[in-house]
Amino acid sequence: MDQSALMSRADDLSKLGLGFTAPNPIVGCIIIDSNNNVIAEEFHNGGAHAESKAINSIKVIPPGATLFTTLEPCNHQGKTEPCSDLIIKSGIKNVIYSITDPNSVAQGGSKKLREAGLNVTSGVLTEKVEFTNRHWLQKIKIGRPYFTWKIAMTLDGKIAALDGSSKWITSAESRDEVSKLRSQADAVLIGTGTALVDNPSLNSHNPGSRQPLRIVMGKSEIPVSHKLNDESAPTHFLKSHETSDLIKLLSDLEINQVLIESGPKLATALLKLGLIDEIVAYIAPSILGSGSSFVGDLDISSLSERMDYQIHSFTQIGNDLRVTLIGRK
Amino acid sequence: MDQSALMSRADDLSKLGLGFTAPNPIVGCIIIDSNNNVIAEEFHNGGAHAESKAINSIKVIPPGATLFTTLEPCNHQGKTEPCSDLIIKSGIKNVIYSITDPNSVAQGGSKKLREAGLNVTSGVLTEKVEFTNRHWLQKIKIGRPYFTWKIAMTLDGKIAALDGSSKWITSAESRDEVSKLRSQADAVLIGTGTALVDNPSLNSHNPGSRQPLRIVMGKSEIPVSHKLNDESAPTHFLKSHETSDLIKLLSDLEINQVLIESGPKLATALLKLGLIDEIVAYIAPSILGSGSSFVGDLDISSLSERMDYQIHSFTQIGNDLRVTLIGRK
Repeated sequence: MDQSALMSRADDLSKLGLGFTAPNPIVGCIIIDSNNNVIAEEFHNGGAHAESKAINSIKVIPPGATLFTTLEPCNHQGKTEPCSDLIIKSGIKNVIYSITDPNSVAQGGSKKLREAGLNVTSGVLTEKVEFTNRHWLQKIKIGRPYFTWKIAMTLDGKIAALDGSSKWITSAESRDEVSKLRSQADAVLIGTGTALVDNPSLNSHNPGSRQPLRIVMGKSEIPVSHKLNDESAPTHFLKSHETSDLIKLLSDLEINQVLIESGPKLATALLKLGLIDEIVAYIAPSILGSGSSFVGDLDISSLSERMDYQIHSFTQIGNDLRVTLIGRK
Repeated sequence: MDQSALMSRADDLSKLGLGFTAPNPIVGCIIIDSNNNVIAEEFHNGGAHAESKAINSIKVIPPGATLFTTLEPCNHQGKTEPCSDLIIKSGIKNVIYSITDPNSVAQGGSKKLREAGLNVTSGVLTEKVEFTNRHWLQKIKIGRPYFTWKIAMTLDGKIAALDGSSKWITSAESRDEVSKLRSQADAVLIGTGTALVDNPSLNSHNPGSRQPLRIVMGKSEIPVSHKLNDESAPTHFLKSHETSDLIKLLSDLEINQVLIESGPKLATALLKLGLIDEIVAYIAPSILGSGSSFVGDLDISSLSERMDYQIHSFTQIGNDLRVTLIGRK
């Protein structure tokens, strides 16, 4: 049995829950029989837990079955029965999980499973699964949601030409991917300035996909005719310029992660406050030379004060390069 | 026999000649015996041709040998005997080459080989070898050298902070690679403005490596104490702001390719004239927000006028991303 390959499959499954599970984590679960055949595949989508869905999808649990889950099974009576109890009752004797639950309310599941005599293995594919669940893990750890800044720009960092034209800097393939990012976000955020100038829908264009909450921050009125006032997705107008009000709103909404699609003004303010956890830059192989830059003044005068990130991954998307930067050093 | 793998090896060999062969192409040559063992590996470095060096490195050419060469063997009596004649005399019966010689003076070698009864195969790994020899091929085709613009920048396209600090935006690994690029260039080019402010050596730092011709363009005097006046590499001071004078100089020097390491002023002028054939951008995962951009005003007001390139390749170098852009669409 290739534990890493099966956990990687559970990890992929878990991502199908992105956007559905806040304030809870995303979780993927696989059950295999003693011949290593997969007999259940489920993910948490905000309702029943992945483990519970997986167990309940099988009529009779065969002897020697093994349950893979990306997160330590919970020991918490919430909306549902604790997964640890459910696993014990199911007769499954082998449990393999990736990351330990850091949440003091829910943790302790592995202890209970071991005390009930189950074989429990932890720490499989931890780094990968931690990255997949980085939004929720950070929120548990530092108490605020995870901010991802999406940028579509030319090689010279421009997001619009001098005359304001910005459609389309990046290729159709990049825009399709951004549409998918939106459907996976708990919320997308822009300022009223961008809302007025660009009149974006901030929708996920993919048929049948989930629409995130749209948050529009700023004091300007957005005309009723503008797309952000349509019924295509829920929209919250935050009549404030204060980042603290934004953080409070996100906390009240109990969301895990926000996709920032704003212009440079709002994004630069968040960057200066150290709130940008991740940058996803779609770089078109083009040069404009003039126009609007994706970032504004950061009060940086010397190179040593620059804001450093690390390259997490990069790939070509259509004609563009997509680079993901994380975790300032 | 894997023709592509052997041609790829010849292609790699040819690159060892970069910087040494102008005005002629780089060429790699491999000879294998009838058991597919490599019995000769040579490259053109400005002296004898690769084919001639390879043949002369073997005491007795074994029966059934095959000669691989990245460029059609020449049919031209220049400094050396035509390679086609030499191959015929050597007794080699099989010749495999990649790209056809586009040079009217030298071409016709394959015809002569075929007429002498040799088995000649062409067109192996053409795309790759054409890219390797793009500098010379372009010079033959459009009559001017190939310009590669090297940029070391932050994600937001800055090459220096507000206070002028620019050491070092990119990682040591990226700078080592740039040092290698310099040793492979026929010439490196900057303007007197950058020469005065940065006082660069433009040397290849790698021990024992070749130093390219340094070309400094502009009308300002460079103090004797500045590094560009040292003896570490040949230096040409072009006292002009006219691009036509630059093209004439490069033509007189018979060079194939120039590495541009200038600031935005000179590079932007060349970009506006459509002279930038390739961009090698080292992108540090950092943001400055203010400072000097790598490119100046291009008189572009609308997105539709942007200068488009294509992504040729990309990879991580140290902490940075290196992206190579070629051929404007």
